[in-house]
Amino acid sequence: MKLLIDKIEKEGTVLANDVLKVDAFLNHQMDPFLMKEIGEEFARLFSSENITKVVTIESSGIGPGLMTALALQVPLVFARKKKSITMQQDVYTAKVYSFTKKEENEISISHKWLEAGDRVLIIDDFLANGQAALGLLSIVEEAKAEAVGFGIVIEKAFQEGGNLLRERGYRVESLARIQSLKDNKVTFVEETLHI
Amino acid sequence: MKLLIDKIEKEGTVLANDVLKVDAFLNHQMDPFLMKEIGEEFARLFSSENITKVVTIESSGIGPGLMTALALQVPLVFARKKKSITMQQDVYTAKVYSFTKKEENEISISHKWLEAGDRVLIIDDFLANGQAALGLLSIVEEAKAEAVGFGIVIEKAFQEGGNLLRERGYRVESLARIQSLKDNKVTFVEETLHI
Repeated sequence: MKLLIDKIEKEGTVLANDVLKVDAFLNHQMDPFLMKEIGEEFARLFSSENITKVVTIESSGIGPGLMTALALQVPLVFARKKKSITMQQDVYTAKVYSFTKKEENEISISHKWLEAGDRVLIIDDFLANGQAALGLLSIVEEAKAEAVGFGIVIEKAFQEGGNLLRERGYRVESLARIQSLKDNKVTFVEETLHI
Repeated sequence: MKLLIDKIEKEGTVLANDVLKVDAFLNHQMDPFLMKEIGEEFARLFSSENITKVVTIESSGIGPGLMTALALQVPLVFARKKKSITMQQDVYTAKVYSFTKKEENEISISHKWLEAGDRVLIIDDFLANGQAALGLLSIVEEAKAEAVGFGIVIEKAFQEGGNLLRERGYRVESLARIQSLKDNKVTFVEETLHI
């Protein structure tokens, strides 16, 4: 997606350890127009799939997830990273390890907001090792809903998450696929440059 | 705001200890159309204020904040609740105690995304004791930006947060003001019923 790739090239910065910092427009400051375009692109890509629910994970998935849900005219459900006292029992849970934050979180979704028969589009800001995606997937499966596919804003194609999901037969649509962050430089996988 | 009040009446539930659970449409499952209407209403209310930035706090502020930022055509900045390793130094911070979650968080915003001269609209899902609002306000002040006002989705008018802010001279616009949650029943302040 050209608009996104331009943003990454202009405003993204590469830190050590293959961390791409996109806090200028995605996960700290957020560009609402870009989020809207991203949501509409995911909705277009999955338009024939009769999605009934968009599922993401707090916090950085909420922006793109909400705009996708708006464009698809379905509810968004965001997994919480820790049980709050207002959430109580009756939740599906999964453990997710974040390599970026070096911590394990329990993510959860209330039984009430996912049902058998739901056709779920999973949205997230990043796909790297796939931990968050697999955690969300296991929750969707536990609810006996169907994961129709994954809409990812930025995929680190040099890490294993994308392959793990595609090998299991899932459709993964990433709007920017990064081949390498070596030498403080972002190199994109060719195919995503011309959308 | 009638649409919001209808939602609260139909889908909200009152728990013990004056907790209003709105996880059906606001802070777990999210109704994207309602969020869009809320954002457009805040944008309309503050349209003459030359807002340059919308500021909120993760996670539940992001939905209404993003839609407000989209309608105002300005960036959204959401305060993080804990420093992540990609955020590092150079942040404004404030301590915020959550009575709902019974925990204290440090919230922070990078120096890069708030500047002197910014005219900031602070958005949040709830205003109760005002801890989160005051934390965001202190960050905006530390950045020498100007807090133009507060856009609150649901104000618990029986708690002190709204008065604390109004007494300090701030404009607080709440789309639903709750007078009482006694006897498991939501009673609204009259004035918000007819918007």
